[in-house]
Amino acid sequence: MSFEGTQAATLNGTHPLPLSPEELRKIDAYWRACNYLSVSMLYLRQNPLLREPLKPEHIKNRLLGHWGSDPGQSFTWVHLNRLINKYDLNLIFLSGPGHGAPATLSNSYLEGVYSEVYPQMSEDIAGMQRFQKQFSFPGGIGSHCTPETPGSIHEGGELGYSLSHGFGAVFDNPDLIATVVVGDGEAETGPLATSWHSNKFLDPVTDGAVLPVLHLNGYKIANPTILARITREELEQLFRGYGWDPYVVEGPGPDQDTEPIHQQMAETLEHVVLRIREIQKNARDAAAAGKTCPDRPRWPMIILRTPKGWTCPKEIDGHKVEGFWRAHQVPILDPQTSAPHLALLEQWMRSYKPEELFDESGKLIPELKELAPKGKRRITANPHANGGLLRKPLDLPCFADYAVDVKLPGQLSVSSTFVLGAFLRDVIKRNMDRFRVFGPDETASNKLQQMYQASGKAWMAEYLPEDLDGGYLSPSGRVMEMLSEHTLEGWLEGYVLTGRHGLFNTYEAFVHIIDSMFNQHAKWLEKSKMELRWRAPISSLNILISSLVWRQDHNGFTHQDPGFLDVVTNKSPEVTRIYLPPDANCLLSVADHCLKSSNYVNVIVADKAEHLQYLTMDQAIKHCTKGIGIWDFASNDQGHEPDVVLACAGDIPTAEALAAVAILRSKCPEVKIRFINVVDLFRLMPEEEHPHGMSAREFDSLFTLDKPVIFNFHAYASLIHKFTYRRANHANIHVRGYKEKGNINTPLELAILNQVDRFDLAIDIIDRVPKLQANASHTKEWLKDQIIEAVNYAHENGIDAPENRDWTWPLELCGK
Amino acid sequence: MSFEGTQAATLNGTHPLPLSPEELRKIDAYWRACNYLSVSMLYLRQNPLLREPLKPEHIKNRLLGHWGSDPGQSFTWVHLNRLINKYDLNLIFLSGPGHGAPATLSNSYLEGVYSEVYPQMSEDIAGMQRFQKQFSFPGGIGSHCTPETPGSIHEGGELGYSLSHGFGAVFDNPDLIATVVVGDGEAETGPLATSWHSNKFLDPVTDGAVLPVLHLNGYKIANPTILARITREELEQLFRGYGWDPYVVEGPGPDQDTEPIHQQMAETLEHVVLRIREIQKNARDAAAAGKTCPDRPRWPMIILRTPKGWTCPKEIDGHKVEGFWRAHQVPILDPQTSAPHLALLEQWMRSYKPEELFDESGKLIPELKELAPKGKRRITANPHANGGLLRKPLDLPCFADYAVDVKLPGQLSVSSTFVLGAFLRDVIKRNMDRFRVFGPDETASNKLQQMYQASGKAWMAEYLPEDLDGGYLSPSGRVMEMLSEHTLEGWLEGYVLTGRHGLFNTYEAFVHIIDSMFNQHAKWLEKSKMELRWRAPISSLNILISSLVWRQDHNGFTHQDPGFLDVVTNKSPEVTRIYLPPDANCLLSVADHCLKSSNYVNVIVADKAEHLQYLTMDQAIKHCTKGIGIWDFASNDQGHEPDVVLACAGDIPTAEALAAVAILRSKCPEVKIRFINVVDLFRLMPEEEHPHGMSAREFDSLFTLDKPVIFNFHAYASLIHKFTYRRANHANIHVRGYKEKGNINTPLELAILNQVDRFDLAIDIIDRVPKLQANASHTKEWLKDQIIEAVNYAHENGIDAPENRDWTWPLELCGK
Repeated sequence: MSFEGTQAATLNGTHPLPLSPEELRKIDAYWRACNYLSVSMLYLRQNPLLREPLKPEHIKNRLLGHWGSDPGQSFTWVHLNRLINKYDLNLIFLSGPGHGAPATLSNSYLEGVYSEVYPQMSEDIAGMQRFQKQFSFPGGIGSHCTPETPGSIHEGGELGYSLSHGFGAVFDNPDLIATVVVGDGEAETGPLATSWHSNKFLDPVTDGAVLPVLHLNGYKIANPTILARITREELEQLFRGYGWDPYVVEGPGPDQDTEPIHQQMAETLEHVVLRIREIQKNARDAAAAGKTCPDRPRWPMIILRTPKGWTCPKEIDGHKVEGFWRAHQVPILDPQTSAPHLALLEQWMRSYKPEELFDESGKLIPELKELAPKGKRRITANPHANGGLLRKPLDLPCFADYAVDVKLPGQLSVSSTFVLGAFLRDVIKRNMDRFRVFGPDETASNKLQQMYQASGKAWMAEYLPEDLDGGYLSPSGRVMEMLSEHTLEGWLEGYVLTGRHGLFNTYEAFVHIIDSMFNQHAKWLEKSKMELRWRAPISSLNILISSLVWRQDHNGFTHQDPGFLDVVTNKSPEVTRIYLPPDANCLLSVADHCLKSSNYVNVIVADKAEHLQYLTMDQAIKHCTKGIGIWDFASNDQGHEPDVVLACAGDIPTAEALAAVAILRSKCPEVKIRFINVVDLFRLMPEEEHPHGMSAREFDSLFTLDKPVIFNFHAYASLIHKFTYRRANHANIHVRGYKEKGNINTPLELAILNQVDRFDLAIDIIDRVPKLQANASHTKEWLKDQIIEAVNYAHENGIDAPENRDWTWPLELCGK
Repeated sequence: MSFEGTQAATLNGTHPLPLSPEELRKIDAYWRACNYLSVSMLYLRQNPLLREPLKPEHIKNRLLGHWGSDPGQSFTWVHLNRLINKYDLNLIFLSGPGHGAPATLSNSYLEGVYSEVYPQMSEDIAGMQRFQKQFSFPGGIGSHCTPETPGSIHEGGELGYSLSHGFGAVFDNPDLIATVVVGDGEAETGPLATSWHSNKFLDPVTDGAVLPVLHLNGYKIANPTILARITREELEQLFRGYGWDPYVVEGPGPDQDTEPIHQQMAETLEHVVLRIREIQKNARDAAAAGKTCPDRPRWPMIILRTPKGWTCPKEIDGHKVEGFWRAHQVPILDPQTSAPHLALLEQWMRSYKPEELFDESGKLIPELKELAPKGKRRITANPHANGGLLRKPLDLPCFADYAVDVKLPGQLSVSSTFVLGAFLRDVIKRNMDRFRVFGPDETASNKLQQMYQASGKAWMAEYLPEDLDGGYLSPSGRVMEMLSEHTLEGWLEGYVLTGRHGLFNTYEAFVHIIDSMFNQHAKWLEKSKMELRWRAPISSLNILISSLVWRQDHNGFTHQDPGFLDVVTNKSPEVTRIYLPPDANCLLSVADHCLKSSNYVNVIVADKAEHLQYLTMDQAIKHCTKGIGIWDFASNDQGHEPDVVLACAGDIPTAEALAAVAILRSKCPEVKIRFINVVDLFRLMPEEEHPHGMSAREFDSLFTLDKPVIFNFHAYASLIHKFTYRRANHANIHVRGYKEKGNINTPLELAILNQVDRFDLAIDIIDRVPKLQANASHTKEWLKDQIIEAVNYAHENGIDAPENRDWTWPLELCGK
């Protein structure tokens, strides 16, 4: 595999021009229609087609929106339309530049899709006026490609994820092309900068193609962009180094004639589309002939260098505007109050000659209308951009078949995630076309390696013989591992947004790297689910958090942060779910539930290390279905009011809480303890605040109205208070959780530092149960000694003492 | 400006070898000493120099730590030592690979620095044994370059920031070279991938140099790395495209002889160091000659391709180890229990010939000792890596000189951040060598543009004439703008860690992009401040959050997220501070305080839009000093118990709360309202939990023991409950905050959607004050009508009605 030439092809050859004069005229006219609509939606509340002279009262009172990247995006779009028609392409469009929605909206309207989705925004004068007015207007739509935008799976509100979303969309969609316009501002973000490497994970045989269009318009909000201010040589080297084959389209020249760049774009884009097809054909023919490991293709990409705000006024009040950052947002700021500026705006808008583009009724004239693709080939009608329409449920094996055989609670230690790996392996096997697992080089570390029995890890870069030792590599692997949480999360989002299924596994501390991506996806989901019936439900985004705070024996303090849950609980209860399965059977039940669900972000917290197992599969299913429950085997308040409620959420806090119970049953058998375990964290919320929330009656019957409650929690304690502060017994709820104390510690030592350990819990209970306080002082001293001994043992031996490390639930308490 | 040759210089020429046989022998021996120490700290608790045969009881009970990148890093280090000595270099070392601490620790110990900082870890057998045992051992030190590591300013626990930290360190340190070893795993992260572009922001005249060493050892935890599996041509193109001049050092060959790569590294590194000096001399000579805008240099970098786990056993039990991912962590897993593996370990350790390297007492032999640089030139003794030692306080102008002239409260609207910009401008002017402001292309958007009067924006890429229009560009600009929050935050961290001062400004919603970086920096600060007296205090990391949730009129839902404060409050109270100044004079006072402080992360929340101003500078200083207080002009409970307490935090919630007071004073003059404003959020916490916390007495005297409290909060409501749930009157505290409701809305409409608006607050008060309930039903109806009218007006006109938009505090209430 070699590069095609050493200079990017600019196609300035002498062969016949790709567009006939007639085609050129029409394409340019269609583009003018896009641009007219784009500028009109920034400004107009009335007089949609300028059929009367423009007056201040036609202008919106507040001007909001962004012009800068619209013309370049629409330019790309109209040329894509030509090729969709010519080659029957199955193509979607992702708009990377944050505020470039007017381009997508204009095109959706001209394609007729907008009016089909929103009948009020009809293809006539009245509809166009509503369409223009609603843009960036209170009660209307936003200036990004929000969920309200037909054809969009990428909002662009937060920059950096367009390319990873595009790759996610085409994985396992061999026929699909995702054109991704990458803004040169966005290109400076870290997530975008590394996502160019996604080409090492795309199989030309089974996946579709991403066609990036780097839109080099030179400026961000108020600064030049880096990529526009390096040499052409550097720019091309950068993209060749990223493994792409760049083609530069540049213009217009100083004479401002747009014909040459139209011809150049038409020819380049056609060449590039044919090149994509050629790469795919070569790879697929080779695969059909039994060749398994093709060379990595150098996929083509386009670098489109056009002026920022292209076609707007060159200068306003002595300031350069077209081709400068002053064209980023609204180029003319005060047409309502400045007559010269109103005239300039009118002149600008009339330069697109709307009277030639729309008929008397306000509809695009037929000769232009026919340039748009038809039916589902229209970019904004492509069903891949409303992925729920295409979504097929997973073919799931029965999760109970993977159960750990629990005969008695708390006797057996197993890695719960290892067990989950077997289930996921078979999910992969049965759903090779629609399910992938994503993780930043931590899949085996998180003990999910049984999955590799079903599929390798996706890899299109070079191979070495040793790659077969351990989870193997494969071009079409279902397990995606790259050391970029951003890219993985972006791939997964693109994958589920286009109707497929997946799971992201990552170290707990570093899931914060994608806090902001989670926020944006949750916001997208909420709007789609609650306000947009035309968007079919998509698979939930499943995030498995492992390598938890409590087992960072060698990674230490940097790897201790369970705060992602706090971020999650700030988002809408309609789309957020958090599960803390205490053992493997619960984890299986929860995972099955999550994989079947739609329109949520499911966060599952489960450690990878070996932990005690408690529930049979039947018990686990019941427990997970309720989401919270009393564990009888660990409770001795049956038939009584308890003296104390010991609650817990999370595998490690559960084990420590049980150990505390065992100590007290032995040392203070008179205390009546109710043991509660929480799997579904939102059960703790009031029912008015979360669909999973409990009524006051339910909550009070579990947690009592007046007894002390010790809650041993996986994460930061305040989260439990956040969920329960309205509960009747809240003043008696005492939460233990991670207190930001730790370094290199044994598991028990770290628990002790944060007081979630068995001994501190037992002391806590003694302190809070009045009837114990008289006689338990000896026990308290003993417990305090245990703490000191545990820490001393750890510091001396580097491990916990066997009686703590290998602790199991007392057999004599199993009969209950 | 042209590249130096088209192929990377591998320096395989025929000229004399750079190292004499004697030098080579010594350098290799020193490297063996590093490697011996690195492997020994993974394994040994006793028998530190293998002076007796290795036995199971000498081995740690739990083996934790990482071998993979250690030999390559030490290899780089010993060659750097040679050049430090030869050219008297001022050089620090940043270890990007997460777990490569044994390399830094070994070198620090061999340089003698470790024993100076930790006298117990002396340069003798007993000290060496303690040094080995403490590594990755409970109660000991971590396996990253944690704050406990002398010479470290970069922990590497979370990957991606080594290069941006390195750049931050050398800005305004013209004499300093920061060698940054970038792991090829880390290189896949987004933050690292874009930080290569930092070279467009480094001025060769006034800044030092970063020397990146991309350590291509081929593997992550369990996968190959991308950059190791692309062609050499692509690899070099990538880095040329990033603007660097790459030199490849590669080895050893199949014969495993290390002499060639030693010679290659010695020659390349020397060439590269001289090239750095040449670039600097050219630029500085040109500057001295009055040339202001030099070409951007192509700085040299090294690509070091050596086997992962270099020098460990090639194979173990039939599995390839050296040169494969199986060398990532502990290569031999069970020497305690497997006699053959114990023997293999001993053979491996003895291969470094410790008996030749250390004298009888256990100290490095003199002929090797002399290879280390002396005094502060020793890498781990370089004071730049303990930046507090070099820190000079800022020369601050009197912030009160920038005060807004407030004659009466609530009459004047001003952008508070615009006012702050004037203060920052003069901070820049007076501290050109030690203060920078960082922001992702949003500095002008955040209204701080008065700073540009003092300094341009840093820029070393191409210039165009129009760049003078608006905030101008300049190679040595003090304002750093790149569209990468990660890079900016990394630069700022590196800048303050090396003893300087700065401020990061960013849009509120997108500060979540650096959640995890904040977490890591806070953890670093806490350990440094609370446990390591030898680390001198560094400047606080100041984060100014602007473009707030409540003013996203056109950006909409994606830009609405005030949740960063929740992330901040999970970190140690010893290092976290949050301020919500309600107006410009308070913002000035807070900013001055933050810029003077050390060892905190200060988060300041202040909107950029124009808002009412309330306090004179004297009042503002008093208010900010207390951090919380009753505003008399807005209270009418003087001399009484109030009927209700109306509290607020944040500029916009404060304005709405005041408007609610004005409504009630007019409509329900009989209600006694106490108006409290909170600037310093942690004042709300119990004094036991945060150094700024209030005692119960103070809190209760403000918030009463039993009166209803309405708290109008800037961010998510639950944070106030998190801070106050232990307060006596908590059950009566009702918090209004952002409820994740919004889209395109006018300011008042968005407030209404989330019920932080004047009308809803007034209704809330009426509902909660018993004496109002009888007679206020008419007022409540009126208020509800106002809400409906406000939304209707917004949807009709696209703006808020003038009487709401231009509302001021009633003059008749100014007299009290």
